[in-house]
Amino acid sequence: MTAVDAKAILASMPVTTGRVAWNRRDLILYALGVGAPELKFTYELDKDFSALPFYPLCVGAKGESSDVVKFGAARAWPKLPGVTLDINKLLHGEQSIEILKPIPLEGSFKAVSRTSGIYDLGKATVITNESIYYDKDDTPLVKLEGSSFIRDAGGWGGPRRPKDPRDVDPPKDRKPDKVETHYISPQQAMLYRLSGDYNPLHADPAIATSVGFKAPILHGLCTYGHCSRAILKAWGDNDSRRFKSIRGRFLSPVYPGETLEHKMWLVKSDANELTVAFQTKIKDRNIPCLSGSAVVKTGGARL
Amino acid sequence: MTAVDAKAILASMPVTTGRVAWNRRDLILYALGVGAPELKFTYELDKDFSALPFYPLCVGAKGESSDVVKFGAARAWPKLPGVTLDINKLLHGEQSIEILKPIPLEGSFKAVSRTSGIYDLGKATVITNESIYYDKDDTPLVKLEGSSFIRDAGGWGGPRRPKDPRDVDPPKDRKPDKVETHYISPQQAMLYRLSGDYNPLHADPAIATSVGFKAPILHGLCTYGHCSRAILKAWGDNDSRRFKSIRGRFLSPVYPGETLEHKMWLVKSDANELTVAFQTKIKDRNIPCLSGSAVVKTGGARL
Repeated sequence: MTAVDAKAILASMPVTTGRVAWNRRDLILYALGVGAPELKFTYELDKDFSALPFYPLCVGAKGESSDVVKFGAARAWPKLPGVTLDINKLLHGEQSIEILKPIPLEGSFKAVSRTSGIYDLGKATVITNESIYYDKDDTPLVKLEGSSFIRDAGGWGGPRRPKDPRDVDPPKDRKPDKVETHYISPQQAMLYRLSGDYNPLHADPAIATSVGFKAPILHGLCTYGHCSRAILKAWGDNDSRRFKSIRGRFLSPVYPGETLEHKMWLVKSDANELTVAFQTKIKDRNIPCLSGSAVVKTGGARL
Repeated sequence: MTAVDAKAILASMPVTTGRVAWNRRDLILYALGVGAPELKFTYELDKDFSALPFYPLCVGAKGESSDVVKFGAARAWPKLPGVTLDINKLLHGEQSIEILKPIPLEGSFKAVSRTSGIYDLGKATVITNESIYYDKDDTPLVKLEGSSFIRDAGGWGGPRRPKDPRDVDPPKDRKPDKVETHYISPQQAMLYRLSGDYNPLHADPAIATSVGFKAPILHGLCTYGHCSRAILKAWGDNDSRRFKSIRGRFLSPVYPGETLEHKMWLVKSDANELTVAFQTKIKDRNIPCLSGSAVVKTGGARL
C-alpha cells in the first residue's frame, strides 16, 4: 500500500451538492443555543441585528428543513482495504470555518461537499470533509472543513496526516491576554440541538451511558460556538463583520451544567487582521476541551 | 345606548378562517420556552414524546409560518360609539383553553376565530375572542377564549360583563394542597418568543420602558405555560392526555429572572375529573400574577 492508493480512493469519492437554508428565527435559535445574551444576535428588530458569523457551522446538520429530522443523513464513507469503519467509533476531531462574505439573515443556499483527505494514524483513520456554501449570486459565502477521527480503523497503509501550516498553537510561556467564562446551562444541549444536530447522544441518557459517558454530552459545535462567541466579543467588539475564520481541535467532551473558560492570546497582528490563539478549559474538571486559533479583522477592515 | 347595540356590533364582526401549523421542533421549542425539563416534552425520540397539551395557546400568534414575522397581524376591532380603541392600551386579561382531542405532533390545522363578546366596564372595554382549531378530519381539536382589556375606552353604554359560571376562585380559608416553584431565567422571554409572539415589549428595553415597565416583561402566556405545566405535573402525572382545560386571569406582569410559585387547591373531584384552583405568585415581590382553575382527567379517563 502507498499514499497513491489513498489518492485514488479520494478521487473516487462523490462530490455532493445540496442546499442549506435559514431564517431569522433559526439565527436567533442558534444564538440562544450557544448562550448569546446580546440583543443584536437574539432580537430581529435590533438596529444592529446580525447573524453570529459562525452560524453556518450548524446548518449542514439542519440542511434545508426546519423540522426535526431523523439523525444521520446518508453520507458516503470511503472503502479502505481491510478496514471496516464503525460510525459509532467516530469522533468529531477538528473543525474550521472561513467566512468569505457577511452572513445573510435568511435564504436558501447551494452547498457543495466533498471528502478532502483520508489519513492513516495507525490505530485510527482520519477523514476530512470540505463544504462550501454559495451565496445567491454563486460566489462562495463560507468554507467549512471538518475532520472525523475513527478509532480502531487504522493500519491500512494510507498516508500519515501532514501538519497543517495554518495551525497555530497557544503560547505555553505566557498568561492569556484575555479570558471569557461561560456557564453552560443544564438544558443547553436540548436547546442547541434544535439548530439541526439531533444526535441522541446529546439528549438520551441511555444512549450516552451505552457509549461510556455518564450523561448526554454537549455538542462539540455548541462548545465551539461558545468559544467563537468569546473571541468575537473579546477581539472583534462583537461586530459580525470582523470575524474572518476559526480553526479548532476538540479535546474532551463537555457536560451541560459545567463552566467553560476561554483563554485567548494575541499571537499576530497587522493593519488588517489579528490572529488569536485560544484554549477552552472545562473549569469544573480543569481539563482542556477545545484548542485552536482564529483570525479577526480590525475595525477598519470588516468583511 | 342599550345592550342591544352591543349585540348588533358583535354580529357585524367578521368570522375569520385561517390556518395554524406546527411540527415536533415547534413543540420542543415551546416546551423549552415554558421551562419544561422533561425529555417526554423535549426529545422527539423519547418513548412517551408528546405535545404539552396547552401548546396551542401559542400557535395563534405563530400562525402557519415558522419564520420570524413582524409583530401584529391584522385583526378586526369593533367600532364603538364615541370611543377610540388604542391598541397600545390593550392588556391580555384572561385566557382559557379546552383540549378536545390529543394534540398531534405535527400538521396544519384550520383555525376559525370570532369576536365573542364586547363589554363596557366604564373606564375600560373588554373584548373577548374565541378560536377553534380543527383536526384534519374537521372535528374540533381545541377551543381557546381570550379577553383583551383596553384601558381608557369605556363609557360607550355597552353591557357590563356577567360573571362566568365556569370561573372558580382559589379557596381563601386553607393552605394549598400542592405547590410548585419555577425560576424564570433571564433569557426565558427571548426563547419563548420564538414560539410566535414577537411583540417587542418582551425583548426591547426601550419599548418596555416607554410604556412604563422597568424592563421587557415575560409574555403572559409564558407565565401561563409555566402554571399549566405545574398543574399537569402535580395533578396529571405529566400525562398530556389528562389535561382537559384551564382558565386564568392575568393579574400582574412578570420579569425574567423572577421566581414563580404556583399554589394549587383541589376544589372538586369525581370519578373522571379533578378541578384544581390555582394562584401563581411572583415570589420575589410577593404579588399574585395569575389566578384561575383547571380541569384534569383522572388516570382512567384520559383524553
